[in-house]
Amino acid sequence: MSEPPDAGPACPIPIGSYPQIVLAHGGGGRLMKQLIETILVPAFRNDLLERRHDGAVGELPPGKLAFTTDSYVVRPLEFPGGDIGSLAVNGTVNDLAMCGARPLYLSCGLILEEGLPIELLVRIVQSMRDAAAAAGVEIVTGDTKVVDRGKGDGIYINTAGVGVVASDRRIEPSEVHSGDAVLVSGDIGRHGMAIMAVREGLSFETRIESDCAPLADLVAKLLAEGIEVHCLRDLTRGGLGAALIEIAETRGVDLEVEEAAIPLPNEVRGACEILGLDPLYVACEGRFVAFVPDADAERALALMRAHPEGSRAARVGSVSGEGEGLVSLLGSLGTRRLADLPTGEQLPRIC
Amino acid sequence: MSEPPDAGPACPIPIGSYPQIVLAHGGGGRLMKQLIETILVPAFRNDLLERRHDGAVGELPPGKLAFTTDSYVVRPLEFPGGDIGSLAVNGTVNDLAMCGARPLYLSCGLILEEGLPIELLVRIVQSMRDAAAAAGVEIVTGDTKVVDRGKGDGIYINTAGVGVVASDRRIEPSEVHSGDAVLVSGDIGRHGMAIMAVREGLSFETRIESDCAPLADLVAKLLAEGIEVHCLRDLTRGGLGAALIEIAETRGVDLEVEEAAIPLPNEVRGACEILGLDPLYVACEGRFVAFVPDADAERALALMRAHPEGSRAARVGSVSGEGEGLVSLLGSLGTRRLADLPTGEQLPRIC
Repeated sequence: MSEPPDAGPACPIPIGSYPQIVLAHGGGGRLMKQLIETILVPAFRNDLLERRHDGAVGELPPGKLAFTTDSYVVRPLEFPGGDIGSLAVNGTVNDLAMCGARPLYLSCGLILEEGLPIELLVRIVQSMRDAAAAAGVEIVTGDTKVVDRGKGDGIYINTAGVGVVASDRRIEPSEVHSGDAVLVSGDIGRHGMAIMAVREGLSFETRIESDCAPLADLVAKLLAEGIEVHCLRDLTRGGLGAALIEIAETRGVDLEVEEAAIPLPNEVRGACEILGLDPLYVACEGRFVAFVPDADAERALALMRAHPEGSRAARVGSVSGEGEGLVSLLGSLGTRRLADLPTGEQLPRIC
Repeated sequence: MSEPPDAGPACPIPIGSYPQIVLAHGGGGRLMKQLIETILVPAFRNDLLERRHDGAVGELPPGKLAFTTDSYVVRPLEFPGGDIGSLAVNGTVNDLAMCGARPLYLSCGLILEEGLPIELLVRIVQSMRDAAAAAGVEIVTGDTKVVDRGKGDGIYINTAGVGVVASDRRIEPSEVHSGDAVLVSGDIGRHGMAIMAVREGLSFETRIESDCAPLADLVAKLLAEGIEVHCLRDLTRGGLGAALIEIAETRGVDLEVEEAAIPLPNEVRGACEILGLDPLYVACEGRFVAFVPDADAERALALMRAHPEGSRAARVGSVSGEGEGLVSLLGSLGTRRLADLPTGEQLPRIC
C-alpha cells in the first residue's frame, strides 16, 4: 500500500487522509469502512441502507416485480447536462419506466480506479443522490470495488433497479399491433452529441446539453390517463433507429417512419454532419418511443407535450402490418430507404 | 473499428467472425445483437429473459423484498474451484441468503475489455449458467458494455439479486443479543488463498481450492427447522475478522472468540505463513458466521454439519455483552488480543 502523498490539492472530504482512491479503499478494511461511512451512506441516506447489512429488505407495494440493470462506462465522466452519476440513476429508472413500472429502489455498484480523485467521486455520488431524489427512488444497497491503475477508467457504475407494475397489461414488443402509431417523446440525439462535442472539442453557437432525464413520471401520466400503451423503449445505445428495428424484429411487424417528422435539433444535425454520423442512431438518455393504438395517438401526444420531459413529442410513423421487421424511412421527396442496425461502433462509451 | 484478424486460434462461437471482443460488441448495433443472441440468451434461457425488453417483469411470491448487489473484479478470472462467473452468482446469492431471503432472480451486468477472447467469455457465461442452476436462481435481465483495451481487465461482472423474506423476523446486526453463540459454517480462508497461490505461483501438497458455493439452501434449512437466527454474514472481503468486527461495532456488543476453535485448513495456514497474512482476514466465498441464541447453538451446529456446505461448522465464541464493539481473540495459552480491521490492503481484487 502506498503512503499518502505529502502535497496535492486539498480535498473537502479526505478519506484516511488520501486525496485519491487507493487499493485499500476496496479491501474490506478500515479505509473502505471510512469511504462508505463518510461519502456513500450520508449521500444516499435512507432507512434500508442504514441497517448496514449485506442487502436491503423492505416492503414492495402490490403488483408485479420489474427488475433491470445497466452498467455505465461513459467518458468523459462529466459532460454538459449531466455526469456518469445522473446517467446511472436516470438510465435505470428509465428502463423500469419502459416496462410500465413505478421505479422504487436502486442498487449502486462502483468500480473505482486507483488514483480517482476523492473530490470527483464526491461530486458523482452527490449527483446520484440528486438524480435519485428527482426521480423519486432510493438507493438502498451498494458495493464498492477498487481496481489497480490502468485497469479501469476513473469510475464505472452499475445500477440495478426494482419497481412495481400495477397494471395487468403487458408493455412489451409482443403487444405491438398493426396500425399502431409510433410516437417519440422529444427531439433526438442530444446526449450522444453532447458527449461527442466534448470529446472532439467541437463548439457550436448553442452548446449541446445531454437530454439525460427521468421518464417514469411522464410514462405514469400516460398510463394513469388510460392510454393503451403497447410498447415503450428508451432511445439509448443505437438511438431511435436501433429501438425501432429491435421492436419491429422482435414482434415481426414492419414500420413506416417519416424522416421529416422526427424532431431533430439544429445543433445535433450540424454536429452529426461534421462527424459523419446518422442522427437516427445517436443515443438519447431522456427520450423514448411509444407504440399506442392510432385512436389514442392524439391524446397521448397532447399528454406528452404538456409534460416537461415531452414538450417536443411527435408522431413519426405507424406499424404498417405483420412482416419481417423492416423499418422504412420515408423521405420528404418520396424516397424510401430501409433502416439497418449499424454493424460497427458509431459512438463508443456513450453511456 | 478494426478488421477481424486473419489468423488465430479457432473459436467455437465466433461473433461476427471475431475471435475477440471488439468495441462494436457493445455499440448497440448488429454485433451486439449477435453477442447477446448467440452467447447470453442461450446460456441464461428463461421466460423473462426471452421477452427481450429493457427489464424483466414477473411475479414475486409473498413476503418482503430482499435486494442486493456486488461487482466482481477478481483476478485471475479462472482459479482452482471456480471463476469470476461462478463467484458472481454465488456471491450475490449468498448476500441474499444472509438477509434470510430465498434468492430468486439475478441481473448480469458485463463490462468487457476490448480483446477478451470470445472463448473465455463463453466459458465464464456457461459457468454463470451452471452456478445459477445449482443455486436455484434465474438470470432474468442483463447489460453488456465494452471498454477500450487498457481500460478494464478482461471482464468485470456485476450481479444484483432479488429474493423474498418469508418470515417476519429480522436477520440483521440489530438483532444480536448478549449471550448469543457465534457459529462459523466451515473452515476459513480457502478462497483467498486459492487466488493468492495462483498469483504468487505457490504450490502445496494439497492444492487449495476456492470454497465458492451457494449458501441459501443451508440457511433455509436453519430457518425451516426453527433456529432463531439473529444475524448472518458471509465471510468475503476482510474474512471472518471483518465480519465479526462490523457486526460488533454496528450492534454495540463485545465478542469473545477462541482462536483455537476457528476451523483452519493446514494448507491455508501454511500459505498464510509464507505470505505473512493473518488468516482471520482472508476472504471465503462459501462460508458464513451465524449469531444464534445459546440454547439453539448445538442444534444449529448439528443441522449445519449435516449439510454439504456446513460439514466443518464450529462454535467459535459468544457475545459477552453490550459494549463498544470489541472483538477479543482468546489464545490457547490464555492470551487475549483485540481484533482490528486492517487499514491497508491485504488481498487486492480477491472477489
